[in-house]
Amino acid sequence: MTKLLYPTSLVLDVASLEGYSVQLVPYDVKAAEIPAEHHDAAILVTWTNTPDNLRYLQANLKNLRWIQSLAAGPNDVLNAGFDTSKITVTTGSGLHDRTVAEHALGLLLNGARRFYEMRDYQLQNKWPAHLGGPQPDRPKDRFTTLRDARVLVWGFGNIAKCLVPSLTTLGAQVKGVARSTGVRDGVEVYSEDHLAKLLPETDALVMILPGSDSTKNALNAERLKLLPNHAWVVNVGRGTSIDEDALVDALEKNEIGGAALDVFQTEPLPESSRLWKAPNVVVSPHAAGGRPQDAEALITYNLRRFLAGQALKNVI
Amino acid sequence: MTKLLYPTSLVLDVASLEGYSVQLVPYDVKAAEIPAEHHDAAILVTWTNTPDNLRYLQANLKNLRWIQSLAAGPNDVLNAGFDTSKITVTTGSGLHDRTVAEHALGLLLNGARRFYEMRDYQLQNKWPAHLGGPQPDRPKDRFTTLRDARVLVWGFGNIAKCLVPSLTTLGAQVKGVARSTGVRDGVEVYSEDHLAKLLPETDALVMILPGSDSTKNALNAERLKLLPNHAWVVNVGRGTSIDEDALVDALEKNEIGGAALDVFQTEPLPESSRLWKAPNVVVSPHAAGGRPQDAEALITYNLRRFLAGQALKNVI
Repeated sequence: MTKLLYPTSLVLDVASLEGYSVQLVPYDVKAAEIPAEHHDAAILVTWTNTPDNLRYLQANLKNLRWIQSLAAGPNDVLNAGFDTSKITVTTGSGLHDRTVAEHALGLLLNGARRFYEMRDYQLQNKWPAHLGGPQPDRPKDRFTTLRDARVLVWGFGNIAKCLVPSLTTLGAQVKGVARSTGVRDGVEVYSEDHLAKLLPETDALVMILPGSDSTKNALNAERLKLLPNHAWVVNVGRGTSIDEDALVDALEKNEIGGAALDVFQTEPLPESSRLWKAPNVVVSPHAAGGRPQDAEALITYNLRRFLAGQALKNVI
Repeated sequence: MTKLLYPTSLVLDVASLEGYSVQLVPYDVKAAEIPAEHHDAAILVTWTNTPDNLRYLQANLKNLRWIQSLAAGPNDVLNAGFDTSKITVTTGSGLHDRTVAEHALGLLLNGARRFYEMRDYQLQNKWPAHLGGPQPDRPKDRFTTLRDARVLVWGFGNIAKCLVPSLTTLGAQVKGVARSTGVRDGVEVYSEDHLAKLLPETDALVMILPGSDSTKNALNAERLKLLPNHAWVVNVGRGTSIDEDALVDALEKNEIGGAALDVFQTEPLPESSRLWKAPNVVVSPHAAGGRPQDAEALITYNLRRFLAGQALKNVI
């Protein structure tokens, strides 16, 4: 019978995977080896496997035909050297939409409401009077609220679509940037050659770009200069999509309003990084996702299609 | 002609107040006196007036018949001693709904996503690894997300109604507590005698109670004990509604998960307060509101009704 190895590194409702002619076998994603009797598995589900574990699986699972990763990006699987000409790899795209979107919203509000600055005062038992009491309503030269804020979401996939309702509920004016132009879920999405026009009209730029050669340093010095001086940058995509030196330069010269970052060129962010102490930076430790939601639904959807010889969802 | 004094302490679109048989006169809300020629004003709009200024107006505006405060609560006007048997006082209730609701949402996400704790690490150039990477999804014994979180909103007026769509968009299960029971805007609202049943089923308690004798120390030691140990308390109503000593005790004993507070018994929060350093406390300096939105619409609505001899909106 077809054998499926599932990870014990997250709580899966295994009962909800039953009902197919498949043997379900748990395995330890941190183990250096797995029992030889399970080397005949045809299906492998991965989540937070160690590199050594993946290399062991790559070397020993000779009958492997499908890998279902629960991560949004399959870099760890690809780095382990699986032969993708023989093995179908599917990602966990979609399992992280809601949690990443919520984190992005939290980072936007952290910037707008300056919770990070309030914290600095709190640690000194000091009341940050300038942040409370009567305030100007929606000043044009600051990012203080999502109401009427012009939010540009760069990378307009499922996470963006999940974020948009929260933004519009709060009154933001949302536009998107993606490879293909058009209206998606009621949002006007533009191609990247419109950035020169869009960036100067942006109060908050939310980056949700995947990691790839084509997105490397997508937000560079030139594009940072196009943003208004009060604009905030939020990144919940991949750290490689921002030129961090250019970002720190822009922050130190007050050429942008601030940056709330969940991802970095190097993670953990090195102690020597200039980002830690640059003005108006919020450092979040790759905390937006990391908890696949409703993984069982994706696994069973793809499992049925795999057994029926149909195309799978989320193939890389 | 009927004279209306409007404050210069906020940007009002004065042109949008025109069209009535009313003389519109600006005045300085911080001034010790205002010119004698304007002591005949019948209508006074107030916003962040000094106590001295209000007392001067109270003593000198002998023809005053209506005060339109732009604040949500009219305490400053009442404290100045205006004769409310002769002068109608209307509040700015409704002008702060969206901005206070947004702040409450931000405080909830600050608690769930632990941005305050991330900040403490950032200040030391340290990566808070325990807050990032793989995380359990929606553990029952922690408040980590609004998705599926049981949010209880205590004080279910316009601000609550404005907050609910943001909460439900993120997947929260919202209930309300108010003086009268019923379904409002799709939310089940209970009376306070249901608190003993509701508090133990709450992951996040959002307090939006007005300041009054009946709400003093509404959240006391006894009720705090009813909350689960992981529950967060958010207060964007009035500081008097929480027994702060009991709250700090509960925090220090880990009997609740945390507290994000925008209002306090005494403001500014005294340097000696135990709240500054209690575990998992977020101190926000009465920053939720403070910026009336669409005040012109309320003023003109009430102005027309005042001139027509009709009942005004937001009468205290």
